[in-house]
Amino acid sequence: MINKLVDKIKKTEAPIVVGLDPMLSYVPEHILNKAFDEYGKNLEGAAEAIWQYNKGIVDAVYDLIPAVKPQIAMYEQFGIPGLIAFKKTVDYCKEKDLVVIGDIKRGDIGSTSAAYATGHIGKVVIDGQTFRGFDEDFITVNPYLGTDGIKPFADVCKEEKKGMFILVKTSNPSSGEFQDRLIDGKPLYEHVAKKVVEWGADVMGDSYSYIGAVVGATYPEMGKVLRELMPKSYILVPGYGAQGGKGKDLVHFFNKDGLGAIVNSSRGIIAAYKQDKYSQFGSEAYADASRQAVLDMKEDLKQAIR
Amino acid sequence: MINKLVDKIKKTEAPIVVGLDPMLSYVPEHILNKAFDEYGKNLEGAAEAIWQYNKGIVDAVYDLIPAVKPQIAMYEQFGIPGLIAFKKTVDYCKEKDLVVIGDIKRGDIGSTSAAYATGHIGKVVIDGQTFRGFDEDFITVNPYLGTDGIKPFADVCKEEKKGMFILVKTSNPSSGEFQDRLIDGKPLYEHVAKKVVEWGADVMGDSYSYIGAVVGATYPEMGKVLRELMPKSYILVPGYGAQGGKGKDLVHFFNKDGLGAIVNSSRGIIAAYKQDKYSQFGSEAYADASRQAVLDMKEDLKQAIR
Repeated sequence: MINKLVDKIKKTEAPIVVGLDPMLSYVPEHILNKAFDEYGKNLEGAAEAIWQYNKGIVDAVYDLIPAVKPQIAMYEQFGIPGLIAFKKTVDYCKEKDLVVIGDIKRGDIGSTSAAYATGHIGKVVIDGQTFRGFDEDFITVNPYLGTDGIKPFADVCKEEKKGMFILVKTSNPSSGEFQDRLIDGKPLYEHVAKKVVEWGADVMGDSYSYIGAVVGATYPEMGKVLRELMPKSYILVPGYGAQGGKGKDLVHFFNKDGLGAIVNSSRGIIAAYKQDKYSQFGSEAYADASRQAVLDMKEDLKQAIR
Repeated sequence: MINKLVDKIKKTEAPIVVGLDPMLSYVPEHILNKAFDEYGKNLEGAAEAIWQYNKGIVDAVYDLIPAVKPQIAMYEQFGIPGLIAFKKTVDYCKEKDLVVIGDIKRGDIGSTSAAYATGHIGKVVIDGQTFRGFDEDFITVNPYLGTDGIKPFADVCKEEKKGMFILVKTSNPSSGEFQDRLIDGKPLYEHVAKKVVEWGADVMGDSYSYIGAVVGATYPEMGKVLRELMPKSYILVPGYGAQGGKGKDLVHFFNKDGLGAIVNSSRGIIAAYKQDKYSQFGSEAYADASRQAVLDMKEDLKQAIR
């Protein structure tokens, strides 16, 4: 799957992943009203609204981008109906041949990590028949529990030729509280990065490993160091746009071949129609605003990486 | 909810939480066959089997214990049907007046952590009406992202009078890879523990905070230090039984008042009938074996704490 991701990034010339992190407050009224009319003003109605909203965006941008990253929390907040909308979104994006990165930030130990891996990138076999719970292509994973927590995910990645991005340095202001603390003279995130390289060496694709890393756009200097520490790991970069990261901050996240990083934008694309810059589209044409925002982001990144 | 947990621990004289972490291989054949006959040999059938298995155990032990801890990964592996079984289990345990600790180990930042908190311990309000996605009483949370990741959970805990246990020192063999590394002369888990105290000070119950910590039974010496560092934090202790922790290892996890810790056992109780010690019960009476295992664990802990 890492090979497919790299191929699609080359073909689209867009190292971009659109974060499908819908909030009810982003959903235009015409979609919201229709969903509530059909399903009621309840969790089912809310879930239908975010699914229809997602579908509109995916239809408008799928030919421009290699991948999407649905954030499962935004669906999980609506309980079972929300998780059904998550599954519909994953399945629909795969129909559109997009690479799907499930932003699930799971992490546990032994059989529990194995169960998460089974549910999201693996399969259940019952009496010789195969079933898949959610079936994303990549997932994000938290490293706090160490190798015991990662190994079961890596085993499933290997078997299924899928992948994961491990949290190394997150984009938020307080990420330094633990991640930046010095251990033997090096910050914790560098120790995690070294483990990412070690874990990833066993599951190599053609040019990059099945195991990548998450490093926030908001920390470009650290991105530079981490790029060099993990030459064969794809870096998933959140924090562009709404969180403050700019195109020019991102240049060091890429390798000299112009590859090695994929930049996420969520709100900046899916709720583009709410920005002054794209307000001419209006809420009915919210998906066209998202398409324009992808094109603008592609240009911004192109300028930066050049 | 921390007050209710402490009250129930006092009443039952059992600082025990039963981990409802069902694996299909634990489910007795008579339950499995019935579920597959009714729902088919598929995810729905598997989910029905683990729900019926859980229900049998809960019916057999609910009067002995204060709390249960369903591990969501074991349900999530079966996709949507599995998560429906998780919800049924949570709801049923609450009907039985058990405190429900959702072992979900979520953790993200800002609006994403807020969404997880909404889904598991909070509520969605649509047009003045309130809906709850999963509605556990406590959850477990990963601290790697720092205060930004914890604050949204703490806000919901405060509003809903619910609680969380933050991973401090996990029970697995490789937990030391990052958690034990020295920062300014102290292991990372102590730095996390200090933050747990800081975060918890703002959400105090009568004698303990809404915010507790997870510390593995497999590290008793560290448990002793952490007990002293976090005097007002309840400690959720996994790793007893199947993972190797024994009653006598647990004494230091408790405060002098005999409170302050709640010890989890999963496989050791829910799959007790598979142990030689309880084999006389047989698979039909698996739940009676679980009841006996709870009684034995209660006695083991009583001896240790005395």
